Amino acid sequence: MPRYKLVIEYDGAPFRGWQRQAEDLTVQGAIEDAVMRFSGESARLTCAGRTDAGVHATHQVAHVVLAKAWRTDTVRDAVNAHLRPLPVAILSAEIVGEGFDARHSAIRRHYRYRILNRRSPAALTRAQVWHVPWALDAGLMHEAARGLLGHHDFTAFRAAECQANSPVRTLEQLDVARLPMGLTDEIVIATCARSFLHHQVRSMVGTLMLAGCRRLSAAEVADILASRDRARCGPMAPACGLTFVGVDYAAK
Amino acid sequence: MPRYKLVIEYDGAPFRGWQRQAEDLTVQGAIEDAVMRFSGESARLTCAGRTDAGVHATHQVAHVVLAKAWRTDTVRDAVNAHLRPLPVAILSAEIVGEGFDARHSAIRRHYRYRILNRRSPAALTRAQVWHVPWALDAGLMHEAARGLLGHHDFTAFRAAECQANSPVRTLEQLDVARLPMGLTDEIVIATCARSFLHHQVRSMVGTLMLAGCRRLSAAEVADILASRDRARCGPMAPACGLTFVGVDYAAK
Repeated sequence: MPRYKLVIEYDGAPFRGWQRQAEDLTVQGAIEDAVMRFSGESARLTCAGRTDAGVHATHQVAHVVLAKAWRTDTVRDAVNAHLRPLPVAILSAEIVGEGFDARHSAIRRHYRYRILNRRSPAALTRAQVWHVPWALDAGLMHEAARGLLGHHDFTAFRAAECQANSPVRTLEQLDVARLPMGLTDEIVIATCARSFLHHQVRSMVGTLMLAGCRRLSAAEVADILASRDRARCGPMAPACGLTFVGVDYAAK
Repeated sequence: MPRYKLVIEYDGAPFRGWQRQAEDLTVQGAIEDAVMRFSGESARLTCAGRTDAGVHATHQVAHVVLAKAWRTDTVRDAVNAHLRPLPVAILSAEIVGEGFDARHSAIRRHYRYRILNRRSPAALTRAQVWHVPWALDAGLMHEAARGLLGHHDFTAFRAAECQANSPVRTLEQLDVARLPMGLTDEIVIATCARSFLHHQVRSMVGTLMLAGCRRLSAAEVADILASRDRARCGPMAPACGLTFVGVDYAAK
């Protein structure tokens, strides 16, 4: 049966996250319902990264197996038509081999976190940033982030309800920079890893925020990691600032 | 009496435009009401560019005269507190001389228009772009825009209800470009002039869209301008894609 790889964009605000739930509106549930209305098939989606409630995506990837072979453009356009007016869009659909699994074939997930760092509240970007009104030094945040890179036990930055078998992850990137020119109100954090623990990115961002306002030194951030003590982690940054921006798959 | 210059950001979606109206929610009305609640004064704002319903701003400028001299940070923070939860924020307040008039002292207004040019509908950016699902050539749009630069009678790109004394304007910039790298779904149009006619930017964008899909040549766009015939202008681009991004004032 044909297997379709879907690239998906969504605004997380109206959704209770990716994962299908009996009662609440979720991204997975909305797309599966649209697939059902278009094809008549009750198909299950598997995605690369199950985002939490409120988290956005510019390039989520999922796969779905359908009994019937459709033109890929038809799959994309028909599912989009049935998703309207929800803020979720299939950007592309392509046929992939049986060996492709959106979740298990992924070798790297990329996230971006946006902080609006100015005294005044967010207006135009309010649904996609964390507003931090006190001054942050992006250089100090980037420096503290160096201590989190690499292969570590990330228990200190893990949600209590995390279901991963192991708290060990390899953080490949965690860059912090203030945007240039007329956009200097905004600090962007870019991160990637093969996989993340539940709430790991938002927990790291909250801790880096404390480094940015000099409440924690880079050495103290490294100590928190080494402590494996969740109670020492900074506040968890809000979901609305986080966007899932891409997935890497191994070349075939 | 002290005169304050305010720099203002807003999401145009919930507002019936800038200008105060008896019944509807407007940006001017919301800010004037917040000034009243904070200061007890019934003050009138004058802005650089009275945006239409749905149009956004990153750097609108307005001035207001208050009887009492407040610290500028207090004006900014107190008005913001009273604006909550509306998506409008005072980014800065400063004291200016009596000679400053946000509208009449402005020597240049800057606007940006965003087109999402892909088959799939907008999800994450849906409130801030015009979705054009057929292919557009940004190079052809930029070329056609050359013919609109300079000092012309812009009657062909003017709303029927425009109240300007003269249809003659000097268009200083009208650049069209597709964004680079991972953002190529988006075409941005940047324009500036001392002032614009009512609906001029959105009318020009709609006409350039027709050049982008080869329905009009650059020569035909120039002909439409020369015709001074509103009926020949392209469709008016929707308000949500337009953002007022800045004002220039002469050095004091």
